[in-house]
Amino acid sequence: MREVAEHRAAVLALARLGGTEELAPGAAAGRVLATPVTAHGDLPPWDCSAMDGYAVRAGDLVGATGSQPVPLTVVGESAAGAPTPQTVASGTAVRIMTGAPLPPGADAVVRQEDTDIGHRQVSVSRRPRPGENLRTRGDDTRAGDVVLAAGADLGPAQVAAAAGAGVGLITVRTRPRVAVISTGAELVAAGSELGPGQIHDSNSVLLAAAATAAGAQVVHRGSVGDDVHLLRAALAELEADADLVLTSGGVSVGAYDVVKAALSPEVDFVRVAMQPGKPQGAGHLPGGTPVVCLPGNPVSAFVSFEVFVRPLLRAMLGASVVDRPLTWGVADDEWDTPAGRAQYMPVALGPDLGVGPAIRRATAGGSGSHLVAGLARAGGLAVVPAHVERVRAGDRLAVIRTESA
Amino acid sequence: MREVAEHRAAVLALARLGGTEELAPGAAAGRVLATPVTAHGDLPPWDCSAMDGYAVRAGDLVGATGSQPVPLTVVGESAAGAPTPQTVASGTAVRIMTGAPLPPGADAVVRQEDTDIGHRQVSVSRRPRPGENLRTRGDDTRAGDVVLAAGADLGPAQVAAAAGAGVGLITVRTRPRVAVISTGAELVAAGSELGPGQIHDSNSVLLAAAATAAGAQVVHRGSVGDDVHLLRAALAELEADADLVLTSGGVSVGAYDVVKAALSPEVDFVRVAMQPGKPQGAGHLPGGTPVVCLPGNPVSAFVSFEVFVRPLLRAMLGASVVDRPLTWGVADDEWDTPAGRAQYMPVALGPDLGVGPAIRRATAGGSGSHLVAGLARAGGLAVVPAHVERVRAGDRLAVIRTESA
Repeated sequence: MREVAEHRAAVLALARLGGTEELAPGAAAGRVLATPVTAHGDLPPWDCSAMDGYAVRAGDLVGATGSQPVPLTVVGESAAGAPTPQTVASGTAVRIMTGAPLPPGADAVVRQEDTDIGHRQVSVSRRPRPGENLRTRGDDTRAGDVVLAAGADLGPAQVAAAAGAGVGLITVRTRPRVAVISTGAELVAAGSELGPGQIHDSNSVLLAAAATAAGAQVVHRGSVGDDVHLLRAALAELEADADLVLTSGGVSVGAYDVVKAALSPEVDFVRVAMQPGKPQGAGHLPGGTPVVCLPGNPVSAFVSFEVFVRPLLRAMLGASVVDRPLTWGVADDEWDTPAGRAQYMPVALGPDLGVGPAIRRATAGGSGSHLVAGLARAGGLAVVPAHVERVRAGDRLAVIRTESA
Repeated sequence: MREVAEHRAAVLALARLGGTEELAPGAAAGRVLATPVTAHGDLPPWDCSAMDGYAVRAGDLVGATGSQPVPLTVVGESAAGAPTPQTVASGTAVRIMTGAPLPPGADAVVRQEDTDIGHRQVSVSRRPRPGENLRTRGDDTRAGDVVLAAGADLGPAQVAAAAGAGVGLITVRTRPRVAVISTGAELVAAGSELGPGQIHDSNSVLLAAAATAAGAQVVHRGSVGDDVHLLRAALAELEADADLVLTSGGVSVGAYDVVKAALSPEVDFVRVAMQPGKPQGAGHLPGGTPVVCLPGNPVSAFVSFEVFVRPLLRAMLGASVVDRPLTWGVADDEWDTPAGRAQYMPVALGPDLGVGPAIRRATAGGSGSHLVAGLARAGGLAVVPAHVERVRAGDRLAVIRTESA
């Protein structure tokens, strides 16, 4: 049996880095940065005030206290977006707003709470340190600084940083085009009437949603029956328009394991030391497009996507971090785990215990990997190492958190 | 000063639950469920096999061992999606694939690994327990069971569960329409040339991206100068098409605090015992649309969005959980925190230490809440309670993880 890490490496080896496109920062959230963003100018662009108050010369206010306020003549005002303010000479002050340029001559700002907020003359009741309540030019970033590195995930803070740094267009990786196809003669599309012996295809819905959430663009979602020729024809059509094809089902040892039959030996079908998800396939279709073949049980497909396909899609996006962060939970449940295989148990995340959430099996009561309704209660996958044979209440477990809400 | 919890309650009190729309499961990922999803049928719909193997009568195989295999006559085959299989009488077996209906008469499945995989006759080398390797009808879910509760976040597993339960359309909450407007005479749009005294508007980019990520539809994003009449006119136009208006800037004590000037006293402007984000506003615009007024410093705006606006949007979506999950980190850094105010420190999340990630200030080196470039390095907000005055290396801190990649 192949170790999880070995199969993961085989899947990641399929990654071809996608193309790029240019987007305005406001349109780039959710994407991955392809080339570094460098600041066009200093931020802040000028020495400016960190507070609403008065720009002063600190030396004028050495004796200022609450009982002995020092009066200064207000000679003007510095507001954000206004022309360069008047110079502060000794004995004077300029009214100033947060973010507004520091007037020439001033070396500190006193907060308006430390004054009488006078208009023509202001009484200052506190001595500022030189430099107090100032932001110096370039304090946040300097022209030419790398604000965002290639491979960065562009969340709200990142696109705002690009906007703030004066960048009009940023170069992001195009979304990998993914085709998803379930296999099985029993499958009918979600919402269709069921005939005898039929069930609804949930895997293509699962994998398409997961691929989209991972940053891909799903260009096809559907199912085919257990017919090698039909499957080969469908894959040939799909691979022309896709950067990655995902199949589910038909990878095990049964007589109708159509994916294995259609794609062996060019695609490598292996048994991986994990539960669920033991049967896996990965390789290239005849036209050269990467294909990852996942098992057909919904829980197995979900786990396999998380462990292998999501990192692959992130690698195709050029993301600097391909894995989700681990969190830690505390078992509030007990269960057996298979000897010699890593287990990825769908778990419901309970209340935070001050060290992480309480975790219970999401599919408890049922036996296994077909439990798509049970899976819907899972907030993550508890990762149980291969050498562990039983999880006991109170055990600390690493959790791949698959929902973030 | 108002406590964080009190202001949060005031903001959450603005929530009006949105309308609903019906979507196919495959189109509903990322939405929040408005009405429960109940299963249309049992899942699995029949007793079926959990393995590829042979459907048998366990009583026929009492003596089967590796050294003394028991032969059975193979009378047919049960494949997924095929018509009802032949009955298993004593002394016979039916070849069966994972998920295929259990033939009448059979009460167990032997895995093909425990046989010689014979075609007309099969030798079984292991005695099965009655019921072994079976999935019973309704084991995952029964017709009428609630598969997803109202308020559920629809991720891949949830939309797959709806599809698997036979549901063709599910009722989700419409996305709240959000208008985002920054204020400040100094602001110009991202990518524009800067004139003297101007800076690029990053807050509207930040808040629009954050609102979208929280499930909203952003119907306007822009900025206005420090003019009360222009701002009132802009807000009047925006509120007609929005379920929520977000402003940034102009809520503090300065002479140009235009939002406060335009909306007092109808909107409540308060000081909240937090850092950053002390000045806040919340209430209704003249036309009745809820408005939340955030401070203008980028870090303050980001923190305020996370602490107040994201929960509000989630409440408008009817989400059963409005907050992000907390994770726990370990300080690898030291800093002072203000007495009597809760601190939300943007932190970079380092390697996992086995108890959570190492955390350092993302904006270290700079002084404060204007550091939009520094904010881009943050993976979350460390929450330091009001009574703490200094964070020390090794302290465990709750972290609101704001990026999930």
